[in-house]
Amino acid sequence: MKKLINAAESVVSDSLTGLASAHPGSIRVDLENKVVYRSDGPVPGKVGLVSGGGSGHEPLHSGYVGRGMLDAACCGEVFTSPVPDQVMAATHAVDGGAGVLHIVKNYTGDVMNFDMAAEMANAESGVRVESVVVADDVAVQDSLYTAGRRGVGLTVLMEKILGAAAEQGQDLDALVSLAEHVNEAGRSFGVALTSCTVPAAGKPTFDLAEDEMELGIGIHGEPGREKVRLGSAAEVAEQLIEPILADRDFTNQPVIAMLNGMGGTPLLEQYIVFGEVAKILEAKGVRVARTVVGNHITSLEMAGCSLTLLGASDDLITLWDAPVNTLGLRWGC
Amino acid sequence: MKKLINAAESVVSDSLTGLASAHPGSIRVDLENKVVYRSDGPVPGKVGLVSGGGSGHEPLHSGYVGRGMLDAACCGEVFTSPVPDQVMAATHAVDGGAGVLHIVKNYTGDVMNFDMAAEMANAESGVRVESVVVADDVAVQDSLYTAGRRGVGLTVLMEKILGAAAEQGQDLDALVSLAEHVNEAGRSFGVALTSCTVPAAGKPTFDLAEDEMELGIGIHGEPGREKVRLGSAAEVAEQLIEPILADRDFTNQPVIAMLNGMGGTPLLEQYIVFGEVAKILEAKGVRVARTVVGNHITSLEMAGCSLTLLGASDDLITLWDAPVNTLGLRWGC
Repeated sequence: MKKLINAAESVVSDSLTGLASAHPGSIRVDLENKVVYRSDGPVPGKVGLVSGGGSGHEPLHSGYVGRGMLDAACCGEVFTSPVPDQVMAATHAVDGGAGVLHIVKNYTGDVMNFDMAAEMANAESGVRVESVVVADDVAVQDSLYTAGRRGVGLTVLMEKILGAAAEQGQDLDALVSLAEHVNEAGRSFGVALTSCTVPAAGKPTFDLAEDEMELGIGIHGEPGREKVRLGSAAEVAEQLIEPILADRDFTNQPVIAMLNGMGGTPLLEQYIVFGEVAKILEAKGVRVARTVVGNHITSLEMAGCSLTLLGASDDLITLWDAPVNTLGLRWGC
Repeated sequence: MKKLINAAESVVSDSLTGLASAHPGSIRVDLENKVVYRSDGPVPGKVGLVSGGGSGHEPLHSGYVGRGMLDAACCGEVFTSPVPDQVMAATHAVDGGAGVLHIVKNYTGDVMNFDMAAEMANAESGVRVESVVVADDVAVQDSLYTAGRRGVGLTVLMEKILGAAAEQGQDLDALVSLAEHVNEAGRSFGVALTSCTVPAAGKPTFDLAEDEMELGIGIHGEPGREKVRLGSAAEVAEQLIEPILADRDFTNQPVIAMLNGMGGTPLLEQYIVFGEVAKILEAKGVRVARTVVGNHITSLEMAGCSLTLLGASDDLITLWDAPVNTLGLRWGC
């Protein structure tokens, strides 16, 4: 294992220490609870948005804390859910009097721990907490760590869109209903060319031959649908799109598209794949209204990419375009 | 070689095709000449800023085209200088009547081709062209592709600061003098944990044992100072800082610091290294005024990182903070 770390057990706290040193003006890091906050929160009268999950997917979630997106991100150990105490601390801290929304990726541990934290926070101080569970990965129905579909790339779009809506003053009920709509309208699928290596494990999570690719990979290196021969970027684009369009019709409205790098794939290659994706979508009558390309939800140093499509009404596109000021997504600020 | 490409020979044009599909509003891509332009240029009365070089370092340079940074980026083949015709096309296209500045990384091919293009453009249409050659890498004096020091991380800071100054209306002479000042005040040093693989070569550029790291690596995988045992992030931070501080005293003014990922190193690890860098700099009396962490000048999928320090007067920090609206750096917009 070749990594720039001090010790496997201090990876997350050492990284958060660096994050705090790097950006003192825009974020505040609670090193004890491993929670990252926007520095100007809580915002009175605004619904507080809390997300989080295992570390190793950066910039998700810590990089999406800031105006127009999350109020707090709870950082678990690598690929491990944060514990309820972390989430409870964040829930209390971001409460501006309008309730708190948890954005949770659909993994058993995360769902359980965020639920427990919501109950505890409510019991302790009466704060109203609602949750949205993101479940957009069409690759597998149930998986290693999941009942139901896994939450992957759509989480980035969910956090952006709900963050914008919360910033505009939408209340907790409206945000829950918006989140359900986003969940219904978004789908993702990913592929891996190489494994990641979890620092505490010290060796690659899975094996792939030199000519193989894993179709439908999870963001923790969980198995997908099958191992196939790695083809051209044009073939990979087809393999990303086919299962998504088989699952939902995206021809009836514009889409927001994210071509996401898994961590170890150069931006040069990500744009090659996006170019092929764009050609195929156009041929299939799917109109891309907004695009984001880059490493947005990663699996440590895994090589590979994922595609997320979100069917987007004008309202959704307006929320997507609204100002955001975070480390990982920033525009209109 | 596992890459998301169609063919080694079409990597750059396929990637530019994807870039053009992804961001039609903010950039314009001349696919024939492989030049990326800001979509609202040329700006009348503003000095035009042109950079470029071999591809494979993205987001450098194409990702730094936009308001407050570059007017055009000329994209050579992977790790290969653009040819004079590309640079000449860009030079003509960005000329807003106030002359054009070429920002060139110090590699023999780039310097020669940009010089030739400057002469040709001047002869053809009388446009005045000046050049700044970035040479910030303290690792080696001469190298495989260089007479004198290599141009690496400081290029990102140079493009940002000169872009801001050009946007504010500074003339060509003022920009040249500012560029000389930035060159004098900036230093970089990098390390690699793994090699990159150039698509056309099809195999890793160099070998490193499982416990080895290359000290002073170049951004094309050129040899640095020596291979050493890979230590902790704290040790790596010391190894990055020591040669920089041995070359220039940074205690007399604040610095802008960039901890840059080489492409294959997770953000989680980059922040661990930055945390250690921050501790050491503080102990040595170097005050960090601004920080940027992430993949900003890469070497395809190479694992590793580099540190750039730029001694920055208040004026330079003001230029750093000025609005920038590009794919790779964006704030205050």
